[in-house]
Amino acid sequence: MKIGVIGLGTVGYGVVEILTNEKTRLEKEMKQEIVIKYGCGLEEVDLPEEIIYTKDYHDVINDEEIDVVVELIGGTTIAKNIILEALNNKKHVVTANKALLAHYGKEIFQTAKANDVHIFYEASVGGGIPVLASQKESLIANNTKEIVGILNGTTNFILTLMENENLDFDEALSIADGLGYVEANPALDLDGIDAAHKICILAQNGYQKFVDFDQIQASGIRNVTKLDMDYAKKLGYRFKMIAQAKPVKDGLGIDVSATLVNLNELVANVMDSYNVVEIDNDYVNNIIYYGRGAGRYVTASAVVSDIMKTHQVERWSHDYEDCKHVYPISSSRYYVRASKPVDIPYETYYSEKDDHIYITEEIELTDLKNKLDDENAVIFKVRG
Amino acid sequence: MKIGVIGLGTVGYGVVEILTNEKTRLEKEMKQEIVIKYGCGLEEVDLPEEIIYTKDYHDVINDEEIDVVVELIGGTTIAKNIILEALNNKKHVVTANKALLAHYGKEIFQTAKANDVHIFYEASVGGGIPVLASQKESLIANNTKEIVGILNGTTNFILTLMENENLDFDEALSIADGLGYVEANPALDLDGIDAAHKICILAQNGYQKFVDFDQIQASGIRNVTKLDMDYAKKLGYRFKMIAQAKPVKDGLGIDVSATLVNLNELVANVMDSYNVVEIDNDYVNNIIYYGRGAGRYVTASAVVSDIMKTHQVERWSHDYEDCKHVYPISSSRYYVRASKPVDIPYETYYSEKDDHIYITEEIELTDLKNKLDDENAVIFKVRG
Repeated sequence: MKIGVIGLGTVGYGVVEILTNEKTRLEKEMKQEIVIKYGCGLEEVDLPEEIIYTKDYHDVINDEEIDVVVELIGGTTIAKNIILEALNNKKHVVTANKALLAHYGKEIFQTAKANDVHIFYEASVGGGIPVLASQKESLIANNTKEIVGILNGTTNFILTLMENENLDFDEALSIADGLGYVEANPALDLDGIDAAHKICILAQNGYQKFVDFDQIQASGIRNVTKLDMDYAKKLGYRFKMIAQAKPVKDGLGIDVSATLVNLNELVANVMDSYNVVEIDNDYVNNIIYYGRGAGRYVTASAVVSDIMKTHQVERWSHDYEDCKHVYPISSSRYYVRASKPVDIPYETYYSEKDDHIYITEEIELTDLKNKLDDENAVIFKVRG
Repeated sequence: MKIGVIGLGTVGYGVVEILTNEKTRLEKEMKQEIVIKYGCGLEEVDLPEEIIYTKDYHDVINDEEIDVVVELIGGTTIAKNIILEALNNKKHVVTANKALLAHYGKEIFQTAKANDVHIFYEASVGGGIPVLASQKESLIANNTKEIVGILNGTTNFILTLMENENLDFDEALSIADGLGYVEANPALDLDGIDAAHKICILAQNGYQKFVDFDQIQASGIRNVTKLDMDYAKKLGYRFKMIAQAKPVKDGLGIDVSATLVNLNELVANVMDSYNVVEIDNDYVNNIIYYGRGAGRYVTASAVVSDIMKTHQVERWSHDYEDCKHVYPISSSRYYVRASKPVDIPYETYYSEKDDHIYITEEIELTDLKNKLDDENAVIFKVRG
């Protein structure tokens, strides 16, 4: 097996390290030689001497000896060209690029199929948590009912900090930033866009439908206050940024939002930068996968398993139909904080100072807003 | 793909149901016809008419058309013959038989290899939780550090009942029995033997070594009292029957025992009949898999995924070395309840009535017992 690694940053270099360190064991298991022929990146890094360094990705994807192209530069422009050209050159592709797969999955999967090669992307969701392969292979007997996840480590770390250190969002964000947890473009994490990329990929795999990413509504955690966090805790809940997908009428319900999760649920007890994915199926109900969603070796481990997989499987089908419509999941129980008592169907009512807190019964969001008739009321979804 | 299902009990009939209900979808995904040719069991059950019923398993394993033999009769006598004969007849085999694999895994795996066919056994550990495939394929980059699990649903259900309903072990056992949770031979569950079968299989997969099952020490939950459960809770712990494996000096440490687990750990919060497996690796640390470990469709779902896998993978290697020695994991922190103060290195001390409770520092069990010099002292392992 001859491999070209394009992108020599945190994850790419981790892949080179793992394949170098574990070469003997992996070759024995795979019963073949495993060679990284190229390392391709804008700046040369310290590579083992048998690896050819190049700045030009064409050297990699045009080399007839290369079986597997590993794309780890990220982004949706050059990375897209690399992947499509590699597939068209009959190379298997392994990538961790969630944004690219969320936006252009259909084109990429269909190009792979047309060229009879594989594209694997375990590292794109949940870092090293082996959820995608498991979903597509081990749960193959099942029809997916619901997918729920904490898919972004940065926001989960910030929410944990707010709770443990009694901080407001801005204070916790500033600490997380100082610790290197926040990306150059913080909106990707904080507004739920990164998590939306990931739930889009999970939904495509689970429901076997191509999802138009632009139809997914995501809101993040900027509107979570210490005040609401405290009230949530008193009522037995904890704020989590929940990504969710489930079938609704003529399409899929998919969204990302700050949500109160009952403390009795395992998902509510996933703290710090950990990720979790819960998949509810018809034959196997709520399977949960938990682990670290990011980090050099965590993500590189998933990339390496995919590289091995290119030589292990005969079938990894993406023959999906288009998903007709994507809706936000707006029928839910809700947390409501209002400045005066309101007339809504509720399960729990609690008041303190001038705040009136309700956990509602299940209700459509528009109905709830109509009944509330209060633009200042704070509203969050509730689970469990 | 032509399949013979041997064993038409709870799980076997579930496999027939799933393959019948999901036939169209699975055939589309697998790009081939999927036919159950035989259903084999001691008593005829209501089978779809295209399935041939037989009492004689030789009809199945000697039929040249059969690609996959599914063994679901359990036990270690006839089941062993069926599997070995099927492998020698060049059939792939799928089984849920944990006792058989724990006792005779080496012979079975080597027979499969000699005949260049596969044996898959996802359903043997954790029911529908897709842990074995994930461990062997998705975590292939990693060297396993530690495996920890709650692998027996019955005992977890009993421990949950004891805590929630404030019952002694015997009372909870009697309720669990009335609900059908206890097997004909209760020792398999209660004394940790079933969990030992499963940790043996997980350890073989994870450490790539054949483990001699008879060297594994297992103790169960019969010695857990309401009194110790209450003290544990006061100190921030909860009793779980923990199966554990990790490398030690010249072999593996493997055992099963009632253990106090810190409530901060997710594993401590796995209740009722749910199972959990936590795998700590060198590149991906603590990955957790959670779900139901038993039940008709849960287990049948894992069997069906394995049946599909016989036509998906090229490689599922069991080229293991023998594990030289298996030891109980006797170096640990311990919970000690003594009737008078004792002189041992401890982290926590608590006393109430005539009970003196210690959470010790990490210590060898023999050293602890020597220091205690009290045969009536109650001792349990502590995690987290």
